[in-house]
Amino acid sequence: MSCVLLTDYPWPNLDIEREIIEAAGYRLVAGPSTASGAAAIEALVAEHDPEAIMTCWSTVSAAAIAKPTALKIVARMGVGLDNIAMDAATRRGAWVTNVPDYCVEEVSDHAIAMVLNHFRGIMAFDREVKHGRWDPASARLRRIATLTVGIIGFGQIGRVTARKLAQGFGCRVLVHSPSLLAQHGDGAEISENVSVADLAGLRENADAIILHVPLTQATHHMIDAGFIGGCRQRPLLVNVSRGGLVDNAALLRALQSRALSGAALDVVEGEPAPPREVVDRSDVVVTPHVAFSSDASLAELRRRCTEDVVRALRGSRPLHACNQPDAGITSN
Amino acid sequence: MSCVLLTDYPWPNLDIEREIIEAAGYRLVAGPSTASGAAAIEALVAEHDPEAIMTCWSTVSAAAIAKPTALKIVARMGVGLDNIAMDAATRRGAWVTNVPDYCVEEVSDHAIAMVLNHFRGIMAFDREVKHGRWDPASARLRRIATLTVGIIGFGQIGRVTARKLAQGFGCRVLVHSPSLLAQHGDGAEISENVSVADLAGLRENADAIILHVPLTQATHHMIDAGFIGGCRQRPLLVNVSRGGLVDNAALLRALQSRALSGAALDVVEGEPAPPREVVDRSDVVVTPHVAFSSDASLAELRRRCTEDVVRALRGSRPLHACNQPDAGITSN
Repeated sequence: MSCVLLTDYPWPNLDIEREIIEAAGYRLVAGPSTASGAAAIEALVAEHDPEAIMTCWSTVSAAAIAKPTALKIVARMGVGLDNIAMDAATRRGAWVTNVPDYCVEEVSDHAIAMVLNHFRGIMAFDREVKHGRWDPASARLRRIATLTVGIIGFGQIGRVTARKLAQGFGCRVLVHSPSLLAQHGDGAEISENVSVADLAGLRENADAIILHVPLTQATHHMIDAGFIGGCRQRPLLVNVSRGGLVDNAALLRALQSRALSGAALDVVEGEPAPPREVVDRSDVVVTPHVAFSSDASLAELRRRCTEDVVRALRGSRPLHACNQPDAGITSN
Repeated sequence: MSCVLLTDYPWPNLDIEREIIEAAGYRLVAGPSTASGAAAIEALVAEHDPEAIMTCWSTVSAAAIAKPTALKIVARMGVGLDNIAMDAATRRGAWVTNVPDYCVEEVSDHAIAMVLNHFRGIMAFDREVKHGRWDPASARLRRIATLTVGIIGFGQIGRVTARKLAQGFGCRVLVHSPSLLAQHGDGAEISENVSVADLAGLRENADAIILHVPLTQATHHMIDAGFIGGCRQRPLLVNVSRGGLVDNAALLRALQSRALSGAALDVVEGEPAPPREVVDRSDVVVTPHVAFSSDASLAELRRRCTEDVVRALRGSRPLHACNQPDAGITSN
């Protein structure tokens, strides 16, 4: 029986995936629950010769994609595609899919939770109280409506975060993306309390900066010493996208010099073993790449991803195709 | 020169109060920055014979109110009046004032920060990561839009919290107060996603319960074993009002038995030395009575309270009178 290889899965069981795949007449083979590097996945692929590869965080290299005799699809169980050698898949005629919008609410909720936690002092004060101190006079908190929040990236998640902050809390929201700037121009108000800003203006005014951009060659280490040097309000930096957006060395220097008043990171370059000098700091709040996660989002992610795999296996176009495979060379 | 006595003040200086009071021709006398009990305040009052008493958290007893020769006002620098013997003030012809709405946004922001922190696992995961664990598969998080949030008390703060959760995040919000029930009836939808509920229905459905009620004889220990026994969703309990609303012994039993999945407390009975068996728990998040606090709210509170004191000293009705003093007996 032909098989589908799932390289890794950060949830307790595979009931949803197995039911859909077996109903389509395929066998599900699962790798370890934790993510693996390129070589381990290449070995797994060589061993099982799958027609479909599903991956969460493991690296699916060009070499892995080259191995199967009849690969039809590489499906990312998530949004970002930075762990899949997409060009290699395209060249050999395999689809690459993702699930683009299953966790829009969650990532946006998570970013706002981090902003509120910081400006209302929740975690910092809990630590104080647990150390035996009760000192309300030390509070330096903010009314959330008085915050200016900069959002870099204005895809689906950025739009929802902007709406919640502007309409829900009355924040002034500055949004930045190259396409927004080109379309509306710097300073344009695109909805109530939400204005387009260039990066200089955003850095000059923002009390918090939230990253909602994908990791690409252009965005790698976009938060570096030069970027932080333009920040004027000692902002909180919130990264709920990809660790590689932030240069950890520059982040550390900025925290040490108080150019940033803190960082809230769901992703850290070096995860799952992020640098301890970053994550151990009391002015850094870290969650282990869970911003996408909820009971609702995980069930949706797993079902929609697996259904797209079955579409490709049956020769149909997946709903969430991210490439247009070269024709006629699906099989080696 | 006649004097105004400020019993306690949880901020670094008294510039705002002193400027307004001295401009009106009075002298400001300040007690310690931390709160005092009834006897200490009675001694302070006897020593200084003030025409006005301003208090944050110190107890202003009937005995303290009886002492001055010409008391015109007892002004609470805050919302709740549970530390002032209001009847005694009324009988001797002195105004009692508060500042009713200076921190509506802050308390509401703080409650929502605590809800988001819990359901997005921010603090719990930060603790894990700082202990060297990176385990996204352990996440049991929630999409905030899927939460049912119960709000007890529907004054200004309750209304703002309901609006932010319902409109900002798309939560289902159940609101409870005796007057809402009398006016609209159980189950009435009073705005999009916001419905009136009796306490039974609220406890049956709520994933989080937020307390936005004042402390009175009727609400003292309203969260007791009987109340918690009716909770069906193992909710998070959020108290941003007064510690005395919650029976700490019942809370502890509910956390131990997992009848509650956690508690987020800005106020704890026994503060400023709350019981360690409550605040040290990892499923309890505590901030030291700072929900009202922000740079914006504190400046507003201090200015508005002091201006009302000056109104009373000049013989005018304060803007925020909470009583109607008996006539003609202002002076002893």
